[in-house]
Amino acid sequence: MTTNTVIALDAMGGDRAPGIVIAGAALARERYPNARFIFFGDEQQVKPLLDKYPVLQASSELRHTPDAISADLKPSLALRQGRNSSMRMALNAVAQGEAACVVSAGNTGALMAMAKFVLKTLPGIDRPAMASMVPTKIGESVMLDLGANVECDAENLVQFALMGSIFCRAVLGITEPTIGLLNIGTEELKGHDEIRTAATILRERPVPGSFYGYVEGSDIAKGTVDVIVTDGFSGNIALKTLEGTAQLMSYFMRQTLTSSFSAKLGYIFARGAMQKLKMRIDPRRYNGAMFLGLQGICVKSHGGTDHVGFANAVGVAHDLVAHNFNKDISEELARQYGVLGTVPALSETELPEAPKLTDGSL
Amino acid sequence: MTTNTVIALDAMGGDRAPGIVIAGAALARERYPNARFIFFGDEQQVKPLLDKYPVLQASSELRHTPDAISADLKPSLALRQGRNSSMRMALNAVAQGEAACVVSAGNTGALMAMAKFVLKTLPGIDRPAMASMVPTKIGESVMLDLGANVECDAENLVQFALMGSIFCRAVLGITEPTIGLLNIGTEELKGHDEIRTAATILRERPVPGSFYGYVEGSDIAKGTVDVIVTDGFSGNIALKTLEGTAQLMSYFMRQTLTSSFSAKLGYIFARGAMQKLKMRIDPRRYNGAMFLGLQGICVKSHGGTDHVGFANAVGVAHDLVAHNFNKDISEELARQYGVLGTVPALSETELPEAPKLTDGSL
Repeated sequence: MTTNTVIALDAMGGDRAPGIVIAGAALARERYPNARFIFFGDEQQVKPLLDKYPVLQASSELRHTPDAISADLKPSLALRQGRNSSMRMALNAVAQGEAACVVSAGNTGALMAMAKFVLKTLPGIDRPAMASMVPTKIGESVMLDLGANVECDAENLVQFALMGSIFCRAVLGITEPTIGLLNIGTEELKGHDEIRTAATILRERPVPGSFYGYVEGSDIAKGTVDVIVTDGFSGNIALKTLEGTAQLMSYFMRQTLTSSFSAKLGYIFARGAMQKLKMRIDPRRYNGAMFLGLQGICVKSHGGTDHVGFANAVGVAHDLVAHNFNKDISEELARQYGVLGTVPALSETELPEAPKLTDGSL
Repeated sequence: MTTNTVIALDAMGGDRAPGIVIAGAALARERYPNARFIFFGDEQQVKPLLDKYPVLQASSELRHTPDAISADLKPSLALRQGRNSSMRMALNAVAQGEAACVVSAGNTGALMAMAKFVLKTLPGIDRPAMASMVPTKIGESVMLDLGANVECDAENLVQFALMGSIFCRAVLGITEPTIGLLNIGTEELKGHDEIRTAATILRERPVPGSFYGYVEGSDIAKGTVDVIVTDGFSGNIALKTLEGTAQLMSYFMRQTLTSSFSAKLGYIFARGAMQKLKMRIDPRRYNGAMFLGLQGICVKSHGGTDHVGFANAVGVAHDLVAHNFNKDISEELARQYGVLGTVPALSETELPEAPKLTDGSL
């Protein structure tokens, strides 16, 4: 008998919420029969949608939340004003042990700020990072940070390397992941001081896996390393440039295959193969940015995704839970830093002053 | 009668030099009949190659240089040790008014260091930038900096905006170019301080064209703006991620169209259109990074390119000369900063201590 995985969902987050959240959960429920959902959102809007999916409804619970975090609300304000929001209450469910993970397609900065406050960072981790899978020539790599931390010091980068590596081991089953630091040249002299210092640390005090050295922007698609480590500014630019270029190439391809009668005829014969390619490079497949380094699993779905993309983000969260990512990372942190990596009980203290946050978004 | 454009070529720079330099020049000579070349390189190697191209040879001069700058030589060492190198002597020819521009496929950091020292920056420009054309959904945009300046302050970014905009006007004929600052979100709060300050300056003290605001990595391929302004670190990562992703997509496409009998058959019909697409996205088309902000035209070819790519880099240099880019930028700098934008005579002074350089490379 398998145990159920309870997933908290922010039903009000995302451009087309709550519709895509409910439909996405229904799809995820088909893929993961052991998944149970707690929806946090406006009952009047969510209930009629849930009624359409009896199987989902039977394995779900709906909790009414009076507020929702708007897409453009500042993280600091979201922290102060969003106590009764769907996003906050979904996070609370993880902190209180009711749910194993939370997925939201809402305001990225607000989600990161709240996740840090509600879930707390893991002992040994200074700053959580956003991580995502990226397609490569030979498979997939994980890249982090993608925008949570605009400025990073060397130690932050080393911690990102550690988290990325443990993710590869725990979730992807890569026993000896390779780690690269994103830089503008492979020579030792290049790049910012913090990157050079991080490289020195990674050589002297290795994290699990093996440190490859510097990688460049072109190495991402090549799949040169399993883990691409970078600050949130560069990571965000790299990820969005990658997405934009892939879309542009797909557009050029469509244009090409409709540009003449002969090309259209060719497309008819190649259609089956082209469909497979389309599925392979479907950006929805890579939806679901993981907030790593928190005492709880939190996944951010792209705000503009549809139900298929949202279901994939739910899958990312499910996999992190199923593979005990946070247990593995806690144990490794304890080994590396001698800190206790267990989750202390959440004390519902007064809200502190809004922490200094970088408003990174995906 | 058109005047000739004399182009100085570093015959020894690049992975496959001098072969691709001579063959590339021959191709460029066909495209630009008014071009004249001065080759700087090892006579024993270059002479036999030139003998194969009688038309090129008739409009060229070969000057023997005893040294060549190796691909991995530090810029500071190149400055001190490279006085008799092909790269340095080609740059000298521009400084001394013998050539209108110089093209090299050699060591990027060394070329930038030498170009700064030999050609000097334009009055009003603190730091030259590397710029390149990038393909977009609706045409092409220019992006800078691409690696010459790892750290940039707000004023540097504003100057990059100005140079990019003048380039669009002078060379591309866009009368009102749009300018965007590469950032990780379009909200006002995002990004580094220097980007926010640059945005404030660009709103208060406009450069030619119109300031659009922030753009994200995904806007590059969309062609949201004509000029994408960024620091050399982010620009280099964006450009290389773009190149890598485009190559990956082409690879996926080739795989797809050979994956089954039916797909192969389809390719036969679509071949004509596919060839056009291949030409459109050929990275060699975008070869030739411009060093903007110097008192002389200097273009860096990709080190690994072939003769077709090198010919395109020569074309980039030729266009900058033909459209009087440096005259336009000097006049605009005089308007903006009240500085005299004319080229002072080069005084062959003693070499100073190696300047503090960022070893950015393309």
